Amino acid sequence: MNVGFIGTGVMGKSMAGHLLAAGHDLVVYNRTKGKAQELLDAGATWSDTPQGATSDRDVVFTIVGFPADVEEVYFGSDGVFASASDGVILVDMTTSRPDLAVRIAETAEAKGLSALDAPVSGGDVGAREARLSIMVGGPEKAFATVKPLFELMGRNIVLQGPAGSGQHTKMCNQIAIASGMLGVCESMAYAKASGLDPEVVLKSIESGAAGSWSLSNLAPRMIADNFAPGFYVKHFIKDLSIALESAEALGLETPGLALAKAMYERLAEQGGEDLGTQALYKLY
Amino acid sequence: MNVGFIGTGVMGKSMAGHLLAAGHDLVVYNRTKGKAQELLDAGATWSDTPQGATSDRDVVFTIVGFPADVEEVYFGSDGVFASASDGVILVDMTTSRPDLAVRIAETAEAKGLSALDAPVSGGDVGAREARLSIMVGGPEKAFATVKPLFELMGRNIVLQGPAGSGQHTKMCNQIAIASGMLGVCESMAYAKASGLDPEVVLKSIESGAAGSWSLSNLAPRMIADNFAPGFYVKHFIKDLSIALESAEALGLETPGLALAKAMYERLAEQGGEDLGTQALYKLY
Repeated sequence: MNVGFIGTGVMGKSMAGHLLAAGHDLVVYNRTKGKAQELLDAGATWSDTPQGATSDRDVVFTIVGFPADVEEVYFGSDGVFASASDGVILVDMTTSRPDLAVRIAETAEAKGLSALDAPVSGGDVGAREARLSIMVGGPEKAFATVKPLFELMGRNIVLQGPAGSGQHTKMCNQIAIASGMLGVCESMAYAKASGLDPEVVLKSIESGAAGSWSLSNLAPRMIADNFAPGFYVKHFIKDLSIALESAEALGLETPGLALAKAMYERLAEQGGEDLGTQALYKLY
Repeated sequence: MNVGFIGTGVMGKSMAGHLLAAGHDLVVYNRTKGKAQELLDAGATWSDTPQGATSDRDVVFTIVGFPADVEEVYFGSDGVFASASDGVILVDMTTSRPDLAVRIAETAEAKGLSALDAPVSGGDVGAREARLSIMVGGPEKAFATVKPLFELMGRNIVLQGPAGSGQHTKMCNQIAIASGMLGVCESMAYAKASGLDPEVVLKSIESGAAGSWSLSNLAPRMIADNFAPGFYVKHFIKDLSIALESAEALGLETPGLALAKAMYERLAEQGGEDLGTQALYKLY
């Protein structure tokens, strides 16, 4: 297929690379051209604008930073909507606002296009190894068309419902992680404060009812004072802000999420925004 | 070995049963005799007091309700310490206060006895199937003697350190669970509020970074309005109260734990104390 790919950062670069490797024709755009060089060397075509990576494409993927970037890429003067032609399918894989996903879908529909929101989880390793979980919102027909491309990037690909549902599902994911991280940090901090060996404590608790991905994967990093980013604090704060605003818009009180967001913001204020999410442990 | 077993509730009954089945000589005491009947039918001997279940025993296990019950069983006028003779090993498997475990150990030592604190996780099913995780504090020598008996009750048996370390480890376990439950409840509540199908959301999120024992095992019960007790809210509140007091005594701030405890107390005030911990979902 003729594919456009907008946003070739750590995630996008790997994901686009899988499409290219499978033989799809790829036009790429990124704010910083240097980050696309590897893909260009591998046979992708460069475009100077999002608009250029959209013309004559069958499917256009976007995975950029913040909701404001998504808006610019789609609605900007040289953006996706400036040139997308009939029948093209637009797929935003950025973790972004559900209401923005709905607005993109409505704009697309009015122009005779389709849109999917399809944020992912699995991080840079998942992107590299094509093991992402992809949470999709949008029409079934567009989903069916794009699914073979999703399957080149991930393993757990689920259509969750209409436009916005992919983003809402990603928020469910981040909400579960957020309060869970408080528990993991406090558990390990308690272990240390009470004179236990946190590594030995993990042997007792990680395979039971306290077990979680975060406990098994991030607690060992906390204990080892390894705060290198797997997932950046600043990006997690972005996600938690979207989740909290979205929950409030739905009339839902989420005190655990609110607490976790406040704690991560405190960590960022103390200079931790470029650390990994496990650095929350430093607050204890 | 000659074993005393004090506390034949849901957990204790199964645990004592494994010891009896392995051929150990068992004297049992329980506040309500009826709950020990199955063990008596299977060959255990009844005692009318904790003291009687301690005399001439090599090892005495206790697993009762609250720290106040532990105190009564050990320090009461017809309690364990009233008759325990030289060399006997006392093993409290109740989830109880770490400082009480230390006091029992010190009293034991002064009398020429040894004590272990050895709370468990794994619930009634784990007790029945001898799959408990047993977190032990106390001297190595006593641990080595009792270990073959622990192995009849559980699979993951770890000596965590000196007296109190078993209780502290159990607190680490409960602390990780507590905030994690906030995340699971809020994730599922968000899914529902945003119009998603929570069961389909689980397909997207449970195998990734949001994954946890609670998400996989308790979220489906929340969704199905199944609030039957696996682990009682009232017992979880007991554990969280011990954890929070103990954290405070250690000078550790645990805002996630404090929030979770407050939420569970609100649930209990609304009549939920005899429900399972997944009933926290009802607050959302």
